[in-house]
Amino acid sequence: MLKIFFIGSGKLNQNFANAFSKTDVEMVGVYSATVNNSLYFSKKFNISQFKDIKDIPTNCDVYFLGVNDSQISIVSQELKVNGIVIHCSGFLSKNLVSNHKNNGVFWPIQSLSKEHYANFSNVPICIEASDDFSLRILETLADKISKRPLFIDEQKRKILHVSAVFANNFTNHLFVLINEFLNGNHLEFDILMPIIQETSQKLTYLNPKLAQTGPASRNDLNTMAQHQSILSKYPELLDIYKILSKSISEHQKQ
Amino acid sequence: MLKIFFIGSGKLNQNFANAFSKTDVEMVGVYSATVNNSLYFSKKFNISQFKDIKDIPTNCDVYFLGVNDSQISIVSQELKVNGIVIHCSGFLSKNLVSNHKNNGVFWPIQSLSKEHYANFSNVPICIEASDDFSLRILETLADKISKRPLFIDEQKRKILHVSAVFANNFTNHLFVLINEFLNGNHLEFDILMPIIQETSQKLTYLNPKLAQTGPASRNDLNTMAQHQSILSKYPELLDIYKILSKSISEHQKQ
Repeated sequence: MLKIFFIGSGKLNQNFANAFSKTDVEMVGVYSATVNNSLYFSKKFNISQFKDIKDIPTNCDVYFLGVNDSQISIVSQELKVNGIVIHCSGFLSKNLVSNHKNNGVFWPIQSLSKEHYANFSNVPICIEASDDFSLRILETLADKISKRPLFIDEQKRKILHVSAVFANNFTNHLFVLINEFLNGNHLEFDILMPIIQETSQKLTYLNPKLAQTGPASRNDLNTMAQHQSILSKYPELLDIYKILSKSISEHQKQ
Repeated sequence: MLKIFFIGSGKLNQNFANAFSKTDVEMVGVYSATVNNSLYFSKKFNISQFKDIKDIPTNCDVYFLGVNDSQISIVSQELKVNGIVIHCSGFLSKNLVSNHKNNGVFWPIQSLSKEHYANFSNVPICIEASDDFSLRILETLADKISKRPLFIDEQKRKILHVSAVFANNFTNHLFVLINEFLNGNHLEFDILMPIIQETSQKLTYLNPKLAQTGPASRNDLNTMAQHQSILSKYPELLDIYKILSKSISEHQKQ
């Protein structure tokens, strides 16, 4: 039975603790620099709380360094253990934890929240490790919660990370903008939910380029001019409208 | 039993014919300026083909003017019938068909394709009409295929149309860009499907502003600078990255 330990009690480790609590992996404990946070975490997932980093058991298989990016190398230096130490960032090098003989990266390609824990079963988990032994352990761990472990080197992981920014952060921000725009015009965002759901559903059977519709894709200058007239009071939306419409027109011509 | 007639045999009327074929609405026939297209349509949906616009039966309840935007008023003038004549554009005025005593607009807020016909059951259908009688008929028609008829005036319909461009056209275009970027880097778009699906699923329980994650939302200048460095060879992606990241940073501060 694999033993894991959580360092940091934020949303990343909470999502993992929730997922591993449904497997045979033994969650040995949690440490956080903020004692109240690790107390909450330990109660929520029914695992031991460790208040001092020096008291962390040294014999776990994997240590999840789920702290802020800027803290990873600092905490890694403080940590004196024998197992595999991993961080879960999509963008940082595993060198940040390479003071440990066995180290790696374990990055789930998903946008996580505290409100609803992720179901990782279809989520690709990108793994990378200092050595073959550690890689096998990380693969086993990934298999416990997901059907899609991915062996990805740092360069490709970074490409995926930038892409995920477009796929999630940017699309979600378009929803933020529309939500404000609709509410300001006394309309409910909920009206657009079916078309939003369909947009992503369609990708399961249609290449996105073939799924493209709308005035920019058919170079309908009249409708685009009228849209821009409506958006003239919303300069931020107007700028985004122009740059994305131009990009669509150019791509659909190709 | 309501009788309807299709003028135009493109994807819009195909989607409607498919939907109404599962109801008690009688589909009287189809006319298209291109005879081969109306032949295909008439065979596919097992309804009568009319080759001359002058032969169209005058006593149907509703005529679906599913032709290109630029043709709507022209075809409307040629059409000599007694029923309600409607167009299905999200952005055009019903004045384009107001040469008919009873007229209206019937716009489903959905991105339609020929490959997979839409299930309209949850799709809002915006209806507008010249008079109360016509509005009741259009409401009855909408009820046959959807749970969400919406009584929306032209100004609000235009606001919804612009919003749908952001919600569908622009998000889909981000997927087009990522698809190319990933393929160029020997990575599969499919890896991002779970995060794309989750992004829209999350909207069902979380306000998009609260769902926002990523470097721009936490003003992580270091990661953003490195992303831009990766994108330096992709000027189009870089421009979009900058404008959307700036917009995210400003909104998350508010």
